[in-house]
Amino acid sequence: MEKFFNPKSIAVVGASEKTDKLGTVILKNVIQSGFGGKIYPINPKSREILGFKAYKKVSDIKAKVDVVCIVIPSENVLEVVKDCTKKKIQGLVIISAGFSEIGPEGKLLEQKIQIITKKHNIRILGPNCLGFINKHNSLNLSFASDKPLKGNVAFFSQSGAFCTAMLDMSIPKNLGFSHFVSIGNKADINELDLVEYFLEDKKVKVISAYLEDIVDGSLLIQKYEQSRYRKPLIILKAGQTEESKSAIESHTGAIAGSIDMFKTGTSQVGIIEAENTRQLFNYMMTFSWSKPMKGKKIAIVTNAGGPGIVATDSVVKNGLEMAKLSKSLQKKIQKFLPLESSSKNPVDIVGDAKAERYQYPIDILAKNDDVDAILVLLTPQRVTQIEETAKIILNATQMYEKPIVPVFLGKKQTSTGSQIFYDNYIPVFTEIDDAVNSLKVLSDYTTRIENFSTREVNKKWKKIVSQEKGKHFKEVQKYVKKTPRILPDEITQKIALEMGFTLPKQIISRKFSQIMNFAKDKYPVVLKVGNEVIVHKTDLKGLYLNIKNEEELEKAYEQLSKNILKKLKKKTFTMVLQEQLTPRVEFFIGANRDGDSDVYKPDIPGFGHLVVFGKGGIYTEIFEDFGYVLVPASKDDIQKSLEKTKVFQIISGARGQKSLNVEKVIEQIYKVQQLTLLYPQIISLDLNPLIITEKDTVAVDIKVFVGK
Amino acid sequence: MEKFFNPKSIAVVGASEKTDKLGTVILKNVIQSGFGGKIYPINPKSREILGFKAYKKVSDIKAKVDVVCIVIPSENVLEVVKDCTKKKIQGLVIISAGFSEIGPEGKLLEQKIQIITKKHNIRILGPNCLGFINKHNSLNLSFASDKPLKGNVAFFSQSGAFCTAMLDMSIPKNLGFSHFVSIGNKADINELDLVEYFLEDKKVKVISAYLEDIVDGSLLIQKYEQSRYRKPLIILKAGQTEESKSAIESHTGAIAGSIDMFKTGTSQVGIIEAENTRQLFNYMMTFSWSKPMKGKKIAIVTNAGGPGIVATDSVVKNGLEMAKLSKSLQKKIQKFLPLESSSKNPVDIVGDAKAERYQYPIDILAKNDDVDAILVLLTPQRVTQIEETAKIILNATQMYEKPIVPVFLGKKQTSTGSQIFYDNYIPVFTEIDDAVNSLKVLSDYTTRIENFSTREVNKKWKKIVSQEKGKHFKEVQKYVKKTPRILPDEITQKIALEMGFTLPKQIISRKFSQIMNFAKDKYPVVLKVGNEVIVHKTDLKGLYLNIKNEEELEKAYEQLSKNILKKLKKKTFTMVLQEQLTPRVEFFIGANRDGDSDVYKPDIPGFGHLVVFGKGGIYTEIFEDFGYVLVPASKDDIQKSLEKTKVFQIISGARGQKSLNVEKVIEQIYKVQQLTLLYPQIISLDLNPLIITEKDTVAVDIKVFVGK
Repeated sequence: MEKFFNPKSIAVVGASEKTDKLGTVILKNVIQSGFGGKIYPINPKSREILGFKAYKKVSDIKAKVDVVCIVIPSENVLEVVKDCTKKKIQGLVIISAGFSEIGPEGKLLEQKIQIITKKHNIRILGPNCLGFINKHNSLNLSFASDKPLKGNVAFFSQSGAFCTAMLDMSIPKNLGFSHFVSIGNKADINELDLVEYFLEDKKVKVISAYLEDIVDGSLLIQKYEQSRYRKPLIILKAGQTEESKSAIESHTGAIAGSIDMFKTGTSQVGIIEAENTRQLFNYMMTFSWSKPMKGKKIAIVTNAGGPGIVATDSVVKNGLEMAKLSKSLQKKIQKFLPLESSSKNPVDIVGDAKAERYQYPIDILAKNDDVDAILVLLTPQRVTQIEETAKIILNATQMYEKPIVPVFLGKKQTSTGSQIFYDNYIPVFTEIDDAVNSLKVLSDYTTRIENFSTREVNKKWKKIVSQEKGKHFKEVQKYVKKTPRILPDEITQKIALEMGFTLPKQIISRKFSQIMNFAKDKYPVVLKVGNEVIVHKTDLKGLYLNIKNEEELEKAYEQLSKNILKKLKKKTFTMVLQEQLTPRVEFFIGANRDGDSDVYKPDIPGFGHLVVFGKGGIYTEIFEDFGYVLVPASKDDIQKSLEKTKVFQIISGARGQKSLNVEKVIEQIYKVQQLTLLYPQIISLDLNPLIITEKDTVAVDIKVFVGK
Repeated sequence: MEKFFNPKSIAVVGASEKTDKLGTVILKNVIQSGFGGKIYPINPKSREILGFKAYKKVSDIKAKVDVVCIVIPSENVLEVVKDCTKKKIQGLVIISAGFSEIGPEGKLLEQKIQIITKKHNIRILGPNCLGFINKHNSLNLSFASDKPLKGNVAFFSQSGAFCTAMLDMSIPKNLGFSHFVSIGNKADINELDLVEYFLEDKKVKVISAYLEDIVDGSLLIQKYEQSRYRKPLIILKAGQTEESKSAIESHTGAIAGSIDMFKTGTSQVGIIEAENTRQLFNYMMTFSWSKPMKGKKIAIVTNAGGPGIVATDSVVKNGLEMAKLSKSLQKKIQKFLPLESSSKNPVDIVGDAKAERYQYPIDILAKNDDVDAILVLLTPQRVTQIEETAKIILNATQMYEKPIVPVFLGKKQTSTGSQIFYDNYIPVFTEIDDAVNSLKVLSDYTTRIENFSTREVNKKWKKIVSQEKGKHFKEVQKYVKKTPRILPDEITQKIALEMGFTLPKQIISRKFSQIMNFAKDKYPVVLKVGNEVIVHKTDLKGLYLNIKNEEELEKAYEQLSKNILKKLKKKTFTMVLQEQLTPRVEFFIGANRDGDSDVYKPDIPGFGHLVVFGKGGIYTEIFEDFGYVLVPASKDDIQKSLEKTKVFQIISGARGQKSLNVEKVIEQIYKVQQLTLLYPQIISLDLNPLIITEKDTVAVDIKVFVGK
C-alpha cells in the first residue's frame, strides 16, 4: 500500500488531447499537483499529450511503471489490465464505471479483472471511483475539481460525490488532509486495507470514512482493536434503514450489513460513528486540531445569559458535566468582572464585555484541574469586539493543554471571528450543540485510549476459532443445510450441558408412562411440545403450565397431542416435561449471525454473532429492553451493556428487593458467546426465558437454529 | 398592543449628545429606521439632541406621547415612570438593567413600577431588554446594532443576546421579520400578550420565540389552541435540565417550569419545539417561505448515490416516508435519463448531470399526487452546473404547490447556488438531516391544521373550572396546608367513588373483629396499613399479600401492628383489608401539579396538572413506560399518548393474548383528569396499581396529596 500511494511513475490510460476528457483532467491534475515522478499518457491515437510523450499501450513503456490509472469505457478495461500484467506494476486505479454497480454483467467483468490482478499481485483501487490524492507526496491522481489542503486527516469514501462534497466543505474551513481516497466498488482495496495502512502511517492523525457496506466487519473491528497504533477512526455509515438498503443495491451493488452489529461492534472497540455529514466534519476537525480532553467537566464563559443556559442544557444532555467551581475560584474570577456578572459556571461576563474581559476567566479556568475543557460563547452585541476576542481566545488555546472551544453565534458579523480560528487550526463552531457534541466524542475517546489494552478476550477468541470445536460439532453439522434448521431438543440439551448451563429437571419423551413416572415428585410441572415441532408455543397452545397432579398431567398430555395432530398433521414429535420454577426475574439471551459459518475466518464477509439479552418472557419484543455485545466481547463489555438495561436494576435489587447474582447472569451471556464460537454454524439462538431465581439461573427454553 | 407597537410619538429618556451612550444609540436607531412620527429626546442637561428639541422631563412635552423609552440607571427609573403618569402614555420600553435579575432589591423596585403602571394602564416592555423593532411601521426602538430585514416572522426573546445572534444569522440568509422584540424581565408584556397579538396581526405568518420560563403555561396553551387564527408558533425553551435551572436563576430571576409539562402541553396543541438555534432558524425559514406539505411522502432527486442513501435513512428516521413511484412513473422519468441512472426513489440522475437533467424528474414528481415534497440533492462534481441548477430548481419551486427543497452539499463552490435560493425566499439547506427534519415539522403542522377544530374538551373544562366543584371539596380543603399532605384513605375512597372508579372490596378499619368478619368470604385477601401512615409500603413491610385463611390473617394482623408500632411509634393508624385480585396487567395513573391550586385561573403561573400513566407495579420507575397528557386533554389526546406506551400493546392483546378493554383504561385516565379539575388542590396523585382484569379495571391503591 505504501508503494501504491507513493508511486514513482504513473501511466494514465485514456488521457487525450481533448481537454474536457476525464483522462485528460486526471493527467492535468497529476501534473499540476507537483508530482515528482515520471508521467506517461497512454492513447493509441496520440504521440504527445500536454507535453508528455504518449504511448499506445502500457507495455510499450520501457521504463518501470508503478501505478496505472484507467479512464476508458468499461468494455475496454479488461484488455488494458491484461496488457498491464506484462509489466511489473504495483497498482491500478480504475476510474471507469460500468462494473458491479450496473448488475450481473458488470459484476462478471469486475470478477475477471480481480482474478487476473490477484494472480499478478496487482492492487486495484475502484472501479467506479474518483481516484486518490496523497497530499504528502504531492499527488492528485483523481478528477476532483478542487484540491484538498494538506493536513493529517485520511479520508476515504465509498461515494465519489461525498468526496467532492467533503472537499468543498473543507476548503473554506481550512481543514487539511493527508489522503483523500475514493474506493468505488472496492474490487480489491477496501476499508480494511486502508484502515490498516493509515493506522501505521505517521502522517495520519485521524482516519475518517463514508461507507455503505463493510466487507469483513469482524476483521475490521479486530484489526482496529489490535493495532499497535491508537488513532480515532470516524465512520459515517449509510444504509441504516430498510428503505435505504434498496437504494444501496441500485447504487454500488453492496448490501448493507445489520446496523445493530455495526453499532455494537464499533462502539465496543471505540470506533466513532458520525450520524451525518456535519458530525463527520466536526469530528474530523476536532480530532485533527484539538488538544485531548481528559475528563467530562466543562466550564462555560459567555457574554450572554441565554446562550449560557442553552449550553448548560446541551452539556447535560450530551452526558458531560458542568465543572463545579469552588467559592475561592469564583472569587478569583469575580475580581476581574463587573458586579452584575456571574462567576458561577456558566461564567457570565455580560453583554458589555469587550475582548479583554474574556481573558482572565479563561486563564483561571484553564489553570484549574477541575475543568477539562472550556466552552467560550460569543454573541454579537453592541460593544462586542469580535476579532479581538477571537485573538484572545486563540492565544489561550495555544497556551493551555486542554480544549478551549469557541462558539461564535450569528453569521454576518461573527464569521470574521470564526475565520481567525479556522486560519489557525482551532476548532470553532456556530452552534452550541455541535461544539458540545464534539467535545463529548473527544472526551470519550481520550478516556477510552487511556484505559486501553488489547483485551484478553481477543487472544482467547483467536484460539477458539482456530483450534477448538464444540464436542458435538459433527452432530450439529448434520443439521446444517441450505436453509436454517432448528436443532432437535436432545442435541440442544447436549450442547447446553457442555457449556454448563443449569437446565430445569426435565425429560424429553413421547411416552406417557415415562413422562408420568418422571413427574412423580416434581409437581407442579410444565408439559410442552418439543421445539423442533413448534417455534412459538405461546401462540399455538403447545404449552401447559402449572400441572399439579397426575390427573391434570394426563389431561394435558391428551390435549397437547390433540392440538399438535390437529395443527401439524405430523406424527413424530417429542414432548418435554419440566419442573415448574418460580422466577424472580425472566431474562433472555439471544444471538444472531451476520455472515456465514466461516465468518470468523479472514476475508469472509460479516460481523459474526451479535449477542442480545435483557428482560425476557413473552413480552420480550414489546419491552425492547435490550443490551448487545458483538462476539468476541469481554465480561467487562457484557457488564457495561447489561448495566444499561432496565432489567439490570431489577436483578441488582431495586425497590428494596433482594439483589440477585449479577455475575452469574453475565456468565450465562458469556457462555452463549462461547457457544457461538464453538459452533459457528449457529445462525440464531433464543434462550427465553432464562429464569433467575434467588440462587441460580435456569435455562428453561433454548432454541438453536443452524445454517451454512 | 397595536398602539404599543405602532406609536405616533416617542420619547427617549437618556438620549444625550454623547454618541456612544445607549440612549443616543436608540434615538439614532429610531431616526434612521425612518420612523414617521414625533421624536422627543429627554435629558435635563441638553436643549437639542441630534437636531431634535430636548426636554427636561416627559411631562414637559405638551403634545401627546405614545411610548416612552427609558435608558437611564435603574435607581432613577421609578421617578421617570412617576413623571410619565402625568401624561396619557400607552407604553414604556425600559431598557435599563438592575431589576429583578439582580435579586430581591431589584425585584422590589420592579414591583413598585408594576403597581404604578398598572394603575395608570401603561404597558411595559422590559426592563433589562434590548427594545423592539417593528419592520412594518419602520420603527427600530432598540439598540440592536444591525437591522433585521422585512418579512413575516415575529420573533421575541427573553435573552437580548439571542436577539442579536438571530439577527446576525438572519441577514446573510435573507430571512425577514415583522417584529423583533426583546422582552427582558417581562415585568408586564410577556409571551402571552405577544402570542395573542401576533396571532391576530395579519402581517405575521410565523411566530417564534426564545423563552426561559413561561408565565402562565396553561393559559398560553389555551390561548394558542382557541385562537381563531392558525399560525405556527415555534419555541426554543432553555432550562431543560436541573443544572441549567440554577443558571437561569442567576440570569433572569425566573424559575424554569417542568419541562415535561411544557413538552406535553405544547405538543398537544401543536406548538413546535426547536431544540437548538439551528432548528429555530430552519423552522422559521421553512414556515416563512415554504409551500405547505400535505402528507409524509418524500421523493428524492440526486446527482449522487451516496447522499441519496443518507437522505433515505434520514427520511425514515424522521418518521416521514419514501414516496413509492409506480412503474409507469419510473418509465416516464427514465425517458429523460441516461442508462446508468436510477428512476426508483431516490431518483439518481448520476454524477455527470448538468442542470437541465434535473428538470424533468422534478416536473414529473411535482405533478404526481403520491409525492408530497421533493428533496433535491446536489453535490459539486466535475461537470455540475451549480448556479444553473439552482435556477431550474427555483423555477420549479415557483411553479408547483408543494415543497421542493434543495440541499446543496459542500460550501466553497456550492454557496453561490444556495445564495440564489436565499435571495428568492426559498428554503435551502447544506445538511440533509436539517432539510428532512424541517420537512417533518412542516408536514406535521399541515396535517394538524387540517384536522383542527377547537376541541370539545376545552369548553367543558372552562365550565368545570369556573362553576363546578367536587362534592367533597370542603372536606378535602381541610387538609390543604402550607406543605403538601396525604389525604386519609376514607376521604380518598369517597372522591374515588364520586369519580366512579371501581375499587376492590375493602374495609378500612383498625378493629380485628371487623376486619375478620369482612374477610370471611373473600380469601385470599391483602392486609395493609393505611396510606396516611406509610407511603412506600413495599419498602417498609406494611403489606401482607396472599392471606389464605383466618389463621394467616390473624398472624398478619399482629405482625403488621408490630411493624408499624416499632417503626413509627404512632398509635393511631388504620388498616385496609382488600380482596386479592389477579391482574392481567398492572397499570398506573399519576398526576402532578405545576403552579398552585389557583393555577386554572387566568394569570396564575403554572401549567396545571400533568397526568402520567403506563406500566404499573413496583417497577414503574424502572421501566419508565410512560404516556403524558396535560390537563385538559381530550380522550383522543389520551389515546394517542397511550398508544405510544409499551403496556398499550399488552393491553390490546399482543403475543396472542386476549385483548383487554382499552376504552375503559382511557376512561380511567380521563377520570383522573376530571378529579384534578374538580379538586385543583391535588398537588400529586398516585394510582398504582390500577389492576386490569379480563372484565374491569380496579383502583387498588390511590394516594392523593393536596396543597395550596
